[in-house]
Amino acid sequence: MHSKLKGLFRPESVAVIGASNSFDKLGYHVMKSLVEGKYKGRIFPVNPKAAEIWGIKCHPFLGAVAEPVDLAVIVVPAPFVPETLHECGEKGVKGVVLITAGFREIEDSKGEALQEEIGRIARLYDLPVIGPNTFGYVNLGFGVNASFTPEFSRMNPGGIALISQSGGYCHLCGFLGMEQRMGVSLLMSLGNRLNVGFPELIKYLVEEDEATRVITLYIEGLDNPRELLEAAGIARGKKHIIAYKSGKSEKGDSASRFHTGSLAGDYQIWKGALRQAGILEVGSAEQMIDAAKALDVCAPLTGPRIAVLSGQAGPGMIAADAVEKAGLKLARFSQKTQEIINRLLPPIAIRSNPVDMGPAWYDAKGSLDILRAAVEDQNTDGVIFIAMFASANVGLAKALAEYLKTAPPFKKPVAAVFTAPLCIWDKEIEQMDGANGISIVPSPERAGAVMGDLFRANLLGSVHA
Amino acid sequence: MHSKLKGLFRPESVAVIGASNSFDKLGYHVMKSLVEGKYKGRIFPVNPKAAEIWGIKCHPFLGAVAEPVDLAVIVVPAPFVPETLHECGEKGVKGVVLITAGFREIEDSKGEALQEEIGRIARLYDLPVIGPNTFGYVNLGFGVNASFTPEFSRMNPGGIALISQSGGYCHLCGFLGMEQRMGVSLLMSLGNRLNVGFPELIKYLVEEDEATRVITLYIEGLDNPRELLEAAGIARGKKHIIAYKSGKSEKGDSASRFHTGSLAGDYQIWKGALRQAGILEVGSAEQMIDAAKALDVCAPLTGPRIAVLSGQAGPGMIAADAVEKAGLKLARFSQKTQEIINRLLPPIAIRSNPVDMGPAWYDAKGSLDILRAAVEDQNTDGVIFIAMFASANVGLAKALAEYLKTAPPFKKPVAAVFTAPLCIWDKEIEQMDGANGISIVPSPERAGAVMGDLFRANLLGSVHA
Repeated sequence: MHSKLKGLFRPESVAVIGASNSFDKLGYHVMKSLVEGKYKGRIFPVNPKAAEIWGIKCHPFLGAVAEPVDLAVIVVPAPFVPETLHECGEKGVKGVVLITAGFREIEDSKGEALQEEIGRIARLYDLPVIGPNTFGYVNLGFGVNASFTPEFSRMNPGGIALISQSGGYCHLCGFLGMEQRMGVSLLMSLGNRLNVGFPELIKYLVEEDEATRVITLYIEGLDNPRELLEAAGIARGKKHIIAYKSGKSEKGDSASRFHTGSLAGDYQIWKGALRQAGILEVGSAEQMIDAAKALDVCAPLTGPRIAVLSGQAGPGMIAADAVEKAGLKLARFSQKTQEIINRLLPPIAIRSNPVDMGPAWYDAKGSLDILRAAVEDQNTDGVIFIAMFASANVGLAKALAEYLKTAPPFKKPVAAVFTAPLCIWDKEIEQMDGANGISIVPSPERAGAVMGDLFRANLLGSVHA
Repeated sequence: MHSKLKGLFRPESVAVIGASNSFDKLGYHVMKSLVEGKYKGRIFPVNPKAAEIWGIKCHPFLGAVAEPVDLAVIVVPAPFVPETLHECGEKGVKGVVLITAGFREIEDSKGEALQEEIGRIARLYDLPVIGPNTFGYVNLGFGVNASFTPEFSRMNPGGIALISQSGGYCHLCGFLGMEQRMGVSLLMSLGNRLNVGFPELIKYLVEEDEATRVITLYIEGLDNPRELLEAAGIARGKKHIIAYKSGKSEKGDSASRFHTGSLAGDYQIWKGALRQAGILEVGSAEQMIDAAKALDVCAPLTGPRIAVLSGQAGPGMIAADAVEKAGLKLARFSQKTQEIINRLLPPIAIRSNPVDMGPAWYDAKGSLDILRAAVEDQNTDGVIFIAMFASANVGLAKALAEYLKTAPPFKKPVAAVFTAPLCIWDKEIEQMDGANGISIVPSPERAGAVMGDLFRANLLGSVHA
């Protein structure tokens, strides 16, 4: 399965069966994703009714393509899927992304029967199939967008893989993640999991996908959760796994049955099982993004003692509250660190923890010296660094960005809150996010929470750095 | 005091004492705020060392200004503040924004003495003073930015006032709010509250500031919280009050002492007192923004029965979980509504609550009919409406925006999650936010939470519509 999945996710060529020039068809948007996403391999649109699609020569059926095809993306209506899968098998494609819906997830029992039929065909040719009922996948690490959402090509490449039981969640988490400059390796929705589910993908990502450092899962319901939990064992000590479980309520449970064909299951049992499997559970898309970003770039948080350094006192106090809410504590600085802070800040500032760096606003070096001292202090395990950037103190943003270009990475996690009006210092903030072991979160509350998640991840022992 | 505050917040003319042409001085940024914020009144820079500042004729001292001055913004060093306040009194200004720091908040006891001195001067002339140690204020309703942060002039005008004990919090909440298109009337930090604090401002906003519909407070610590709670009584039945209390932890408490000169106090006592005063308490800047936006534009949520309508099943399930987490419940549709939904959606969709509107993606009218039916259903009290917009379904975003331009406002609150890649459909989303009683939140989790806050606000009886 692994080598086949490699061909599926790193294809040298892609056929789009059901490609279209019509904006109203998903086959149009899949072509748009590949072309505008600057996919470097060959693209073969397949449609008996067109000569050219998106300016590329079109083939009437898959067998008419003379060259080898690694990946087939299928967007034809459900009744045509069985024969199309046969064609894929005959052609020797390495894998299929089956976007078409109308299988096990529909109320009509014909859907179930159709899904069983295509399952048999896939087994016949030993064909891995993502879907049916998926929006596709985007592999930022390889530069291929095999989905009907071209906008995903704008995401930053990075170390976070998102494997989701819902395409809608991919869009939610993907778009929110884009706002937070989340670095993505692979983003995909499983759909009805014909023969590729969480276990196969976790194994693939752990063993074959070097770009991925953090695996995030959105789970609604599974018939055999044990397989997922066992697969998580393979990741232990190698890559972090974060899971978000929905369908916690009774109503959500029955919705899950319709959506993905599996019951959501008892949430309390899930909670314990995820923890036992070393999986970090989160409770929202925003928390998943914050935690995944921090686990991707920060050093591990090996203890609970947090320093809060803030350019403004109020947000520093809020972060201090959030640190305690997350079950961590405010570090007590060593004498050496306290002396450095006292030297750099006048007595008008709060110089204990949380530190109000306000008076060092115009002194980027002073702020950086305090940051370094706090990270190097033997009495701290992690640092929250906060600055609201506006007209009067923008020099600090520029100087920080400049310094971080060449500085060695911090050996303790640093969660930074660099809040600024949109579209003004985006470039500096983009530069700093992920640099030197710093991960940026949008608010002091989320900085405290992400420190809590880093600490939980360390306790779960998911990765020994 | 009221009429004086009106002059302070709606000045016909502003003098900037300590105005500067040098980027390193706060007096530069205050001038920038007024000039680039397109303040329509007269601006009088005051500085004995310059002939012109920001291209405007400069006066050597306040008395040299021949015209009347309503507001004086002071940015001279602390030792010069007493004589400057005397000048303001002699000149007959209506109010002062005292940005200068170095008073009661510093460790040195000279600060306390200096604050007492300027208190006496303010009493002598019956002069309302915002500060000292404030970043200033921005009155979007009147078009004046009397702060050192020119970027605040970009905020949308609206019905939300933010009165904060921390300038840093104003920047945090203001910048995060800008991303959420928050509509602001007044944004200000109290600083050390020489003679203008929460009680005076609540009274002013309730009785004199028509633009303000929701008053939000960021509180660290107060010597006399009873005054605030009594003032909140005046707002009851007229305007909503939301409060965010920080300094909940012991360490935060001592930080508050240094920051604002007041102890934070026991949080549990605060919690009960705020509730008794009809004030909605929130636990983060993001929650404050979501709640304030919804209270500003939505109809009241008078019951707990929520309909969840989603263009994608996964985010709908997440919202369903969030509704139950917030202590509300998923509505059971009336037969009439269910029939409308069943007619518009094929059986492949989840048609109970949460509703998966996926198959109506290309049918904006269908989605709108479902939304209208859910709002008008006697079995619902509020609606969460979710759509992730991307290439394939952008027609829905455009059609929705178009429809809402002329449709009558919804009589029940609608929290919408319109998530899309940044800078693509910003215009459509901007148009829809606040229109027709719809408030947009960034995620399904926050949609559930904001419904919970609307319901709590209704139970607190803060505004009887």
